[in-house]
Amino acid sequence: MAGNSFGEVFRITTFGESHGEAVGVIVDGVTPGIEIDRDYIQKQMDRRKPGQSSITTSRKEYDIVNILSGTFEGKTTGTPVFMILYNTDMRPEAYDDIKHSFRPGHADFTYLQKYGIRDYRGSGRASGRETAGRVAAGALARKLLENRGVSVLAYTTEVGGIKSNQFVESAIEENPVRTCDPDAAPAMVEMIEELARLGDSCGGIVECRVRGAIPGLGEPVFDKLDADLAKAMLSIGAVKGIEFGTGFDGTRILGSEHNDGMDKNGFLSNHSGGIIGGISTGQEIVFRIAVKPTSSISVAQKTIDIHGNEKEIVTTGRHDPCICPRIVPVVEAMTCLVLEDHFKRHLAMHG
Amino acid sequence: MAGNSFGEVFRITTFGESHGEAVGVIVDGVTPGIEIDRDYIQKQMDRRKPGQSSITTSRKEYDIVNILSGTFEGKTTGTPVFMILYNTDMRPEAYDDIKHSFRPGHADFTYLQKYGIRDYRGSGRASGRETAGRVAAGALARKLLENRGVSVLAYTTEVGGIKSNQFVESAIEENPVRTCDPDAAPAMVEMIEELARLGDSCGGIVECRVRGAIPGLGEPVFDKLDADLAKAMLSIGAVKGIEFGTGFDGTRILGSEHNDGMDKNGFLSNHSGGIIGGISTGQEIVFRIAVKPTSSISVAQKTIDIHGNEKEIVTTGRHDPCICPRIVPVVEAMTCLVLEDHFKRHLAMHG
Amino acid sequence: MAGNSFGEVFRITTFGESHGEAVGVIVDGVTPGIEIDRDYIQKQMDRRKPGQSSITTSRKEYDIVNILSGTFEGKTTGTPVFMILYNTDMRPEAYDDIKHSFRPGHADFTYLQKYGIRDYRGSGRASGRETAGRVAAGALARKLLENRGVSVLAYTTEVGGIKSNQFVESAIEENPVRTCDPDAAPAMVEMIEELARLGDSCGGIVECRVRGAIPGLGEPVFDKLDADLAKAMLSIGAVKGIEFGTGFDGTRILGSEHNDGMDKNGFLSNHSGGIIGGISTGQEIVFRIAVKPTSSISVAQKTIDIHGNEKEIVTTGRHDPCICPRIVPVVEAMTCLVLEDHFKRHLAMHG
Amino acid sequence: MAGNSFGEVFRITTFGESHGEAVGVIVDGVTPGIEIDRDYIQKQMDRRKPGQSSITTSRKEYDIVNILSGTFEGKTTGTPVFMILYNTDMRPEAYDDIKHSFRPGHADFTYLQKYGIRDYRGSGRASGRETAGRVAAGALARKLLENRGVSVLAYTTEVGGIKSNQFVESAIEENPVRTCDPDAAPAMVEMIEELARLGDSCGGIVECRVRGAIPGLGEPVFDKLDADLAKAMLSIGAVKGIEFGTGFDGTRILGSEHNDGMDKNGFLSNHSGGIIGGISTGQEIVFRIAVKPTSSISVAQKTIDIHGNEKEIVTTGRHDPCICPRIVPVVEAMTCLVLEDHFKRHLAMHG
Repeated sequence: MAGNSFGEVFRITTFGESHGEAVGVIVDGVTPGIEIDRDYIQKQMDRRKPGQSSITTSRKEYDIVNILSGTFEGKTTGTPVFMILYNTDMRPEAYDDIKHSFRPGHADFTYLQKYGIRDYRGSGRASGRETAGRVAAGALARKLLENRGVSVLAYTTEVGGIKSNQFVESAIEENPVRTCDPDAAPAMVEMIEELARLGDSCGGIVECRVRGAIPGLGEPVFDKLDADLAKAMLSIGAVKGIEFGTGFDGTRILGSEHNDGMDKNGFLSNHSGGIIGGISTGQEIVFRIAVKPTSSISVAQKTIDIHGNEKEIVTTGRHDPCICPRIVPVVEAMTCLVLEDHFKRHLAMHG
Repeated sequence: MAGNSFGEVFRITTFGESHGEAVGVIVDGVTPGIEIDRDYIQKQMDRRKPGQSSITTSRKEYDIVNILSGTFEGKTTGTPVFMILYNTDMRPEAYDDIKHSFRPGHADFTYLQKYGIRDYRGSGRASGRETAGRVAAGALARKLLENRGVSVLAYTTEVGGIKSNQFVESAIEENPVRTCDPDAAPAMVEMIEELARLGDSCGGIVECRVRGAIPGLGEPVFDKLDADLAKAMLSIGAVKGIEFGTGFDGTRILGSEHNDGMDKNGFLSNHSGGIIGGISTGQEIVFRIAVKPTSSISVAQKTIDIHGNEKEIVTTGRHDPCICPRIVPVVEAMTCLVLEDHFKRHLAMHG
Repeated sequence: MAGNSFGEVFRITTFGESHGEAVGVIVDGVTPGIEIDRDYIQKQMDRRKPGQSSITTSRKEYDIVNILSGTFEGKTTGTPVFMILYNTDMRPEAYDDIKHSFRPGHADFTYLQKYGIRDYRGSGRASGRETAGRVAAGALARKLLENRGVSVLAYTTEVGGIKSNQFVESAIEENPVRTCDPDAAPAMVEMIEELARLGDSCGGIVECRVRGAIPGLGEPVFDKLDADLAKAMLSIGAVKGIEFGTGFDGTRILGSEHNDGMDKNGFLSNHSGGIIGGISTGQEIVFRIAVKPTSSISVAQKTIDIHGNEKEIVTTGRHDPCICPRIVPVVEAMTCLVLEDHFKRHLAMHG
Repeated sequence: MAGNSFGEVFRITTFGESHGEAVGVIVDGVTPGIEIDRDYIQKQMDRRKPGQSSITTSRKEYDIVNILSGTFEGKTTGTPVFMILYNTDMRPEAYDDIKHSFRPGHADFTYLQKYGIRDYRGSGRASGRETAGRVAAGALARKLLENRGVSVLAYTTEVGGIKSNQFVESAIEENPVRTCDPDAAPAMVEMIEELARLGDSCGGIVECRVRGAIPGLGEPVFDKLDADLAKAMLSIGAVKGIEFGTGFDGTRILGSEHNDGMDKNGFLSNHSGGIIGGISTGQEIVFRIAVKPTSSISVAQKTIDIHGNEKEIVTTGRHDPCICPRIVPVVEAMTCLVLEDHFKRHLAMHG
């Protein structure tokens, strides 16, 4: 109800502020008896962590995941898995200058409006650091999905208007933008580095594909698979939109073209993005999200302080000029959480 | 869990198939002591009902809403409000030809995959008729929001690629497309009528604006206001995408432009669409959804029957060549449900 | 959240007031493909309905259950099953005298305090008639449990202090008190009839046994099987207590006696009532509930009116002098709902 | 769904095993801006901790509560409050002998049946240590209730058949049994010490009173205040029953006596225990729970090992011969959680 839990059967609850003592997650509903490997989880944490390349923030969080419950002798026990990451490179004093002002594009204003109190240090709970618990939990879900033959893959398709023109899966983790187009990657990197120099930022588009999902996942009418994926994606800070299959472009073609016909070998196209009537078709599930330009920029901006006085503000601190590369593992994590949850829900219904 | 409920405090549960005996809704969590007017609810039902104009299906459902519980002497009592609409113009025999085949773009295939059984009559639960209960419940929420000074308005901004170029609020209910551009309306109508003649269909884009919402609505980190609106919208059949504020286009501008600065009079722009960090800013909330072309078309399409044999199919029955005009009141209803629920959740938290 | 839903996977939502137009239930999460027989459900409704014998209220409700959705060609489809019972023998005018007063033992005072408004006709939502929807839904759950080899049996073991001394299962439905002791039944009936003449009432104890439940049902630590059964029972009006196994008496024996030892054939005793650590052991599940004396009596009682003036009140209307016989099917229904829900939850977890 | 969360608005999720690395809790839905005092919480932890007196287990857990998120400069922020207690005095080797056997009265058998795997060290998740997180969260709820003028008090009224005969509130925390009868305390202590010498155990009865609750709390029909309290109590290990007001004895008096009449000063009696129709009356809320004899005893008992071989077992380790004194703060904590949650739910409904 208060918004810090996600999922129904496979359900996570997260806690922690950016510059508090720790962030973490309780994962409830984990299948018992599954071999769990801390390294497997850590590998996903490392994909999300800051300081990976020249185009990400220089904050040094080692993001070491600690599993404190729910496993025994290397296996899950069916009881809640608790994972915690202690914060290390905290510099709350770096935020003193924004203590009494609202940074444009940030949740400073809205958190104060909502709660009447605000942990201003590094955006507190509104920081991207909150996603660390999601990625840890998502790694658990990913493991369970692997056992089901399902894989989830996200990557950047556009950065600041520079589009990818090909899909080379093997290239994704080989470039710092995590784009699927190795030829477009250099221009993307160059743009981001230039913006970093200018103290400005850009957005982009991230695409996600789910392979191996059985047909039948999703619970109409309200918990449609696409509805739950949309909620999952929009729950990530900086995400401003989502589209499935042909999405917005699909509104400009005719029904006779958009409808995915079938022959004895299956579907003849995938305009639907692998979900029809809120239920997976068994095809690849495909969606794209819009990632807004990073709010933290060092260009001077007009704002007000908490007393309503006008002022200019320059956001310092250590930030990503484009969040796409680091949002990729978060998108995958949230997608894994939705998929594993819906597998379990589907089974419950039929039991 | 099984997907037929929506909302947390102000919570609806719907039932009913297109060609069963009735559709309806239980609304739980309704504020007690509110004057309720059946006509007020009926007015919204009439906006959704089929057969309103030359460009909507000719199915004749009078959509008479019956309130059977939860009110006493003209006021809500705090107990569940139950509303039912008996189906009248059922023609299940019209669906005999599709009994054993999967209509492209429809949920025929996925429902059978999921449940192992399918009420094929008029798409059963996957029919747009399922939204009748949503609109009835949404009217209740709309009434409560009116008392809070909040209004919700949706309208068509694009049909089959024809874009609106102005926003004339008074024009919306005056043209059959429910577009905000009276000058674009005739071309949109013409296109839809032409497609109707051809037995084909088109999609479009519907925009929604919420006015008067206080800052502070939305429950980070998972039940962000935009996340719940996204889920609400994607739970509507035919919706394939959503974007808030500048949305996908916003990924192509710089952070220094996208960030909404402030002066002593408030925000200087609304690229965020009225929601930052998942919490309403107090500005107008603005989002757009992608509506796919209607799946039911009479153009011959390739498909298979339930035994896997290839065949061609022509969908007869009575259908809307473009669903945008009739999806408008559903978008408003779902938006009202989300808003009223979040108002109550916000209050609960602070109580 | 607002309290009119029960269960997680197999979930019911009820509506309706005693003297409104109808009462009913939506059942979500029903396994698809199950043969459903209206007569099977009606049979349970008939066990609950008023006017069955000399010791129950003379209100004539035929309690005809109508299934309006969720089935197709005699089978469940996986979509919500909606069942409604239209009220027929309403006499709201019989309640005019209590319109402005609080009947002792009734929820008149608390409903007005909570909601600020009250449907006083026949107790409105607080009436026992509200349980009709529970029994209809419970019959569905009972059917699913039968397929799993599980049976649920409740019966009266004590009435107004008269205890049963034997367990004769076949006798239960053969006497109007639904007691398991045919020798005690006449005295129980005589007491109830005498109280009816005096306009007074008595309470009693109802016991319930679940047979055939697999070990492993229940979700520690909060959704223990006994915790959910306790909630289910206390959610029934007039129930004031519950105990499992040896219950309160078990607090007076030593641990060495209370602990249920095992040998190779299984447990050697069942002090635990078939649930240990919140999880079913595979033994018979046994619990007992305390049913308070019916609140509606025609003996004069001290009370106040809604303006705070003191007065005497005599409750007229048609009421059961002892609610035990009619609470038996409700206890069974709620037990079935809990069991079927926990079966599904157990499966979801392991899926 | 998987059972490790409790509450709707004020909602807790716990994790941790008895002999794992830590136990703890995330509390979501905490009112922002409340002054929070670690000492206030620690005081409640100290009432629950082992080793307080001659009649409790000698396990030395200092139960130091650490608050790692959700507060800022001494106040709650509205974000999740996370509290953790690191385990210190772990002796997993003490449990080697029960690794392959089922202790009678313990959840060893049922956990293995349910999950197919079992953390046998100190009962794992089924240990009373799991309640530490509940008490920490309950202290937060207690603070919020204090601000509302509500107090919650539990105490032992019976131990191994020895009953208390008076209610002396000031005596409760002054005797190691936490009984309200200082005259009965010595006999109770003597019995428990004697049982400790014999390696046996006894049960008892704990009563709880809530004072200052407004009328109107509770959400009929399923989330009645007594229904949710019953669930809360039965979710505590070792609790086998609950009764409200006159409870089981109330089934043996007539309706004319049981009904609580009113005059202009309020209710004339409190047979209902302060809850009618599932809603608080504004009177004192009173209920009692049955606590079974501690399962861990060193008397030899018949059992089987995990291969089904019969054997005798003697449970060593450090245990409480009567759990009543230490269950008292847990009962209070769970009661606080239910009350605060229902306050918030009541407000949400009316907002």
